[in-house]
Amino acid sequence: MTKCFITGVAGFIGSNLAEKLLEGGYAVVGWDNFTTGQVRFLEKVRQNPNFQLVEGDNLDLPALTKAMAGCEMTFHLAANADVRFGLNHPEKDLHQNTIATFNVLEAMRANGVKKLAFSSTGSVYGEAEVIPTPEDAPFPVQTSLYGASKLACEGLIQAYCEGYGFEGYIFRFVSILGERYTHGHVFDFYKQLLEHPDHLRVLGDGTARKSYLYAGDCLDAIWHVMHKETAKTAKHNVEVYNLGTPEYCQVKDSIGWICQHLNLSPRLDFTGGSRGWVGDNPFIFLETKKVQATGWKPKLTIQQGIIRTVQWLQENQWVYDSRH
Amino acid sequence: MTKCFITGVAGFIGSNLAEKLLEGGYAVVGWDNFTTGQVRFLEKVRQNPNFQLVEGDNLDLPALTKAMAGCEMTFHLAANADVRFGLNHPEKDLHQNTIATFNVLEAMRANGVKKLAFSSTGSVYGEAEVIPTPEDAPFPVQTSLYGASKLACEGLIQAYCEGYGFEGYIFRFVSILGERYTHGHVFDFYKQLLEHPDHLRVLGDGTARKSYLYAGDCLDAIWHVMHKETAKTAKHNVEVYNLGTPEYCQVKDSIGWICQHLNLSPRLDFTGGSRGWVGDNPFIFLETKKVQATGWKPKLTIQQGIIRTVQWLQENQWVYDSRH
Repeated sequence: MTKCFITGVAGFIGSNLAEKLLEGGYAVVGWDNFTTGQVRFLEKVRQNPNFQLVEGDNLDLPALTKAMAGCEMTFHLAANADVRFGLNHPEKDLHQNTIATFNVLEAMRANGVKKLAFSSTGSVYGEAEVIPTPEDAPFPVQTSLYGASKLACEGLIQAYCEGYGFEGYIFRFVSILGERYTHGHVFDFYKQLLEHPDHLRVLGDGTARKSYLYAGDCLDAIWHVMHKETAKTAKHNVEVYNLGTPEYCQVKDSIGWICQHLNLSPRLDFTGGSRGWVGDNPFIFLETKKVQATGWKPKLTIQQGIIRTVQWLQENQWVYDSRH
Repeated sequence: MTKCFITGVAGFIGSNLAEKLLEGGYAVVGWDNFTTGQVRFLEKVRQNPNFQLVEGDNLDLPALTKAMAGCEMTFHLAANADVRFGLNHPEKDLHQNTIATFNVLEAMRANGVKKLAFSSTGSVYGEAEVIPTPEDAPFPVQTSLYGASKLACEGLIQAYCEGYGFEGYIFRFVSILGERYTHGHVFDFYKQLLEHPDHLRVLGDGTARKSYLYAGDCLDAIWHVMHKETAKTAKHNVEVYNLGTPEYCQVKDSIGWICQHLNLSPRLDFTGGSRGWVGDNPFIFLETKKVQATGWKPKLTIQQGIIRTVQWLQENQWVYDSRH
């Protein structure tokens, strides 16, 4: 039975991926430091005898190396995913993303694990000149510490693929939504509307255009690509795929769908400006022809993904209590 | 008197830059940990009352922050520049390039220093698809830990320019040659020919095409750009310039020029293959129209730069004694 290692297993994507891999007949070693991961997200997988949970931090290389023993591939999802507040603590992206990824690669090398999937981000394109933005867009300029750190991770992975014969799959995500979603604009909007259903404070002017992907579709894409494609036959031992839907929406569209679903008509207080915060990108839309050419396509539209997310938040309001 | 901070001041480029800045009327605080820097390269500048030397390591952030006090701009040149042996000690590029650059940026932020020049590398293009390679070439795949670490540094600098209002100048160098050159193929070839003038061992098959720039021309370019251009008016507060000559040569051309200059006819023992080592790039040639459009152009050809380098090595054979 092939054993997989998942970093960030108690997170939004990690916990869903663990379920999918176990259902697909894999054994899973799940690794998390529980700074943002939720024990409750693992309730189901912990009942599976093929799941093993190890609590630990990516900055502890000896423990990470030990935990990974016997695994054949690694899904490296653990990260500081907080784009917005990066400037408040610049060392966080360096430690939790760049150095953490270096440690994951070193733990793999020590254990002879050579196959890796990595959750990167469309933020590495900065404010892209070409939209929809393809994987081989013009060399970007970084506009956030988060994007810069994920780019650093991508570079490390690519160099390990070239230098040590690793096989790497780098997925550049748009924002992911769905069950167990615990940060982002839908999370924030629903929280506000729980507290004060009559008004909603919106960063920026509501015209920002963003793209979203439903978590189930995201996992299907990763699963599909890693079973069907072989980066080893490619020029570089590593392949990069954008993951997203072939559409985008405006923040105000999203607000409309959320409010309609909740049957609310709040007053909207826009903070103004095209950017919600320093480094916010007013237009994110990734070209996804490359991944679609492998035979995968998303099942849910952005609107459906947003509604599904609100439904899950309605049924799981505990996520607001356990955080910050 | 404007005070400049130079990291890696005892290195090849750093020591030459210190002389140039002092001659230009600046005060200079030079910083080096002397792991590869040479005290002898500082003999001239240490006689200048406007030069202050501080010994320290970029990984020691408190000392770095203290040393930078009172400076108005930083030239960050200190790096692990050893591309070839990166795979033997992967943590070296992470620490000495990525984390070191983060510390330089943090020391700048603590001191209110906002203007930065950074020595990056054409290695960030990996094996470029477009040659000559422009600054906005298609998003590259990294093929060396060195390139990956310099890309990580670039991303950090760009994010600091966007997030904290820094003004950044990133220079992507081809291989630099000239006085005080202490590593690279001319250094290795001349060393071999000193030891055994009758034969020369050459990594690869001699057909690799590379571009070189004379150090004096490199410093002129940095000086010229930073006085003439203002990244602050640009879209991103940061500008990226390729630095090189508008030509390339083959390794065997270089061997021919060196041997002709030394009046030697060694037997050539090629190790074979198009790459000298894993991650070696068989064709490096950067498009330099962007920097030439500012009014700078190199004075020496590659051939002249190589001869100048051999002449300096002939006059300074001590550099072979003091290393390794």
